[in-house]
Amino acid sequence: MSFDFTLDTTSGAARAARFDTPHGVVETPAFMAVGTLATVKALDPRDLRAMHAQMILANAYHLHLRPGDELVRELGGLHEFMQWDGPILTDSGGFQVFSLEGLRTIDEDGVDFRSHLDGSKRRFTPESVMRIERNLGADVIMQFDHVIPGQSNETDAREASERSIRWLIRCEAEFRRLGNVERGTGNRSSELLAATSDGQLASVPSFPFPVPAQALFPIVQGGIHANLRREAGRAITSSGDWLGYGIGGLSVGESKPDMYAMLDVVHEELPQDRPRYLMGVGFPEDLVESVRRGVDLFDCVAPTRMGRNGTAFTSDGRVNVRRAELRADPGPLDETCECTTCTRFSRAYLRHLFVADEILGLRLLSLHNVHFLVALMRRARAAILDGSFDAWSRDWLARYHSRPTPVP
Amino acid sequence: MSFDFTLDTTSGAARAARFDTPHGVVETPAFMAVGTLATVKALDPRDLRAMHAQMILANAYHLHLRPGDELVRELGGLHEFMQWDGPILTDSGGFQVFSLEGLRTIDEDGVDFRSHLDGSKRRFTPESVMRIERNLGADVIMQFDHVIPGQSNETDAREASERSIRWLIRCEAEFRRLGNVERGTGNRSSELLAATSDGQLASVPSFPFPVPAQALFPIVQGGIHANLRREAGRAITSSGDWLGYGIGGLSVGESKPDMYAMLDVVHEELPQDRPRYLMGVGFPEDLVESVRRGVDLFDCVAPTRMGRNGTAFTSDGRVNVRRAELRADPGPLDETCECTTCTRFSRAYLRHLFVADEILGLRLLSLHNVHFLVALMRRARAAILDGSFDAWSRDWLARYHSRPTPVP
Repeated sequence: MSFDFTLDTTSGAARAARFDTPHGVVETPAFMAVGTLATVKALDPRDLRAMHAQMILANAYHLHLRPGDELVRELGGLHEFMQWDGPILTDSGGFQVFSLEGLRTIDEDGVDFRSHLDGSKRRFTPESVMRIERNLGADVIMQFDHVIPGQSNETDAREASERSIRWLIRCEAEFRRLGNVERGTGNRSSELLAATSDGQLASVPSFPFPVPAQALFPIVQGGIHANLRREAGRAITSSGDWLGYGIGGLSVGESKPDMYAMLDVVHEELPQDRPRYLMGVGFPEDLVESVRRGVDLFDCVAPTRMGRNGTAFTSDGRVNVRRAELRADPGPLDETCECTTCTRFSRAYLRHLFVADEILGLRLLSLHNVHFLVALMRRARAAILDGSFDAWSRDWLARYHSRPTPVP
Repeated sequence: MSFDFTLDTTSGAARAARFDTPHGVVETPAFMAVGTLATVKALDPRDLRAMHAQMILANAYHLHLRPGDELVRELGGLHEFMQWDGPILTDSGGFQVFSLEGLRTIDEDGVDFRSHLDGSKRRFTPESVMRIERNLGADVIMQFDHVIPGQSNETDAREASERSIRWLIRCEAEFRRLGNVERGTGNRSSELLAATSDGQLASVPSFPFPVPAQALFPIVQGGIHANLRREAGRAITSSGDWLGYGIGGLSVGESKPDMYAMLDVVHEELPQDRPRYLMGVGFPEDLVESVRRGVDLFDCVAPTRMGRNGTAFTSDGRVNVRRAELRADPGPLDETCECTTCTRFSRAYLRHLFVADEILGLRLLSLHNVHFLVALMRRARAAILDGSFDAWSRDWLARYHSRPTPVP
């Protein structure tokens, strides 16, 4: 069995667990760094390994456009291509496609859109996205879903959520047809679908390498409407014995209380013995709040994007390293941080790198920020395991919020 | 004794030697990576250590402007600031100041110029540059010299060369006054000068850290005029027992035969038992040709600048990794290269990174190119030591020149 999820212990809704994948185990809660285009921006895979990052992300939409998922397959799959031998998860590209406002048209079968790179016409269906994600060869692949803005009304949210569930069934059928027969799902309705949506069977590609088993994760949608989230959770869990669950459509413009309320609802609907992945979240405080509500896995571009912009997470809030006050500051970004940026370089040096537009600055801050979230989840896990999570998380949040602009 | 230079063996004019500095030994011939602003662009000091780079460069002009040499001193000196514990050499900034065509005026005392960053008025004299280089705290510091274009006529070249020698004497007096008393030089005329050129003694700064001994290197100028190079070599060697010699004003627009002819002249004039550093050179073929003519140390921005532009050195000539032919190429940049780029990543992946404007591409190609030159000099040294240098260097040059555009 390639995939397994074992709960170590819980603390309220918070969970410490181990998620086994074909490329190794992920101790949860865990933050996954985002490598959209088969590289975590500004970092080397060895940097990620050195900071004990466990699982990383890539993106089906972006890699389909560039360099092409078939090329990645030809070159041995994503693990070989980007030289990361740990677990990988690919997002389906639903979020990207539906973000192309004005460049895409949606129908029940799929989405026509134009590439953001060259304007070329493209079409994604649940089936074509499964083939793309199969070509990329990540351990966990996300279903193609209908993503809507965070503040959508109930009618729009219901339409998108129910379509996403119909698309899930089609994803799963194609997923099985492509050869993912090992307990990838236990979907009971998949045999109903024998062909792709356009009535033709796409050829199953041959691979120049042994393709490990993949796990297909459904995505729970429903906007900020508790009843929709509940309905989606029930429909998805009753449609199959999924190996894990994505929670989508959050951290996209809604309020924090709304997001946390949705997590509480979803927590009640999803099985305890499967990992929950909160997509696109986030900031340190969001991670801690969400672990308190039963989430196991996270991803977000924030640590690398903010790192490239010169903003660092610290235990006392965010710091912009370009600030003049840091000019002669000999201390590390964060005294409690054990990353290779903080254990070597001064704030003054980091400021100098950013003021002088030096590439090393982008790397060192991205490295620190990703390490910060990876280590934060490691710390949360330790607290769950030793029974101190509730107190630890309250203390951590209080300190983080107390000094948004630390004295240098 | 902090500095020493021990010849291991020679092969014709080529030399294998060990250059001892306060921060460790440099086995020569050696290529020094350039860290103009206290960072070798796109690389981490650990990358340099991992590839066994021995000594690196920084630049007094650039660091004086940003972040300021006094700040670097306050923060513990260049080694501490940039977290490189190996030997460092600082160039004086002569090349940069004299490159500011239209923004500088030269007189016998020094150069008035405007900062390329903000247009602010500045003045460099031999004395002020020594204070800057003392603040930075590199192991080897270069004299402030008058640099001219590569094709300058004999009159201009003579004026600049003779002025550089007068400035050397002033550099050395200030260098001693600042406390570099340990066999930094054996200059016989330095006691003649007790004050800075403006008649005032600058205060000797105190340092917040133990300042290791520094070695001041003179720079042999003379353009492409053999008689001027010979005169400069003789004047400089007769002015003191210098710990090493820079060879400047080459690879600045003159022809390759002219450059090689100047190296032959300088080789005859400089003492055998001191290192020779050919400034700003260069390309792989230039390094091999120059080792054949008795040069020990090199520096150049080419490997990192070309790396950022997507061009890689290989044993078969240069390769632009953006080329369409590399799209699906699973092989390494250079099959014979042992760098961490070539031992991990395919040409196809590197092409993808550059096409997608990913920062990791800049890093991986810069890393490969610097490694290429560092390893090339290590290979040259091994060949000198085992007596095969003449044959090896001829074979290497023949292969490198035979296929400037290798079949992918």
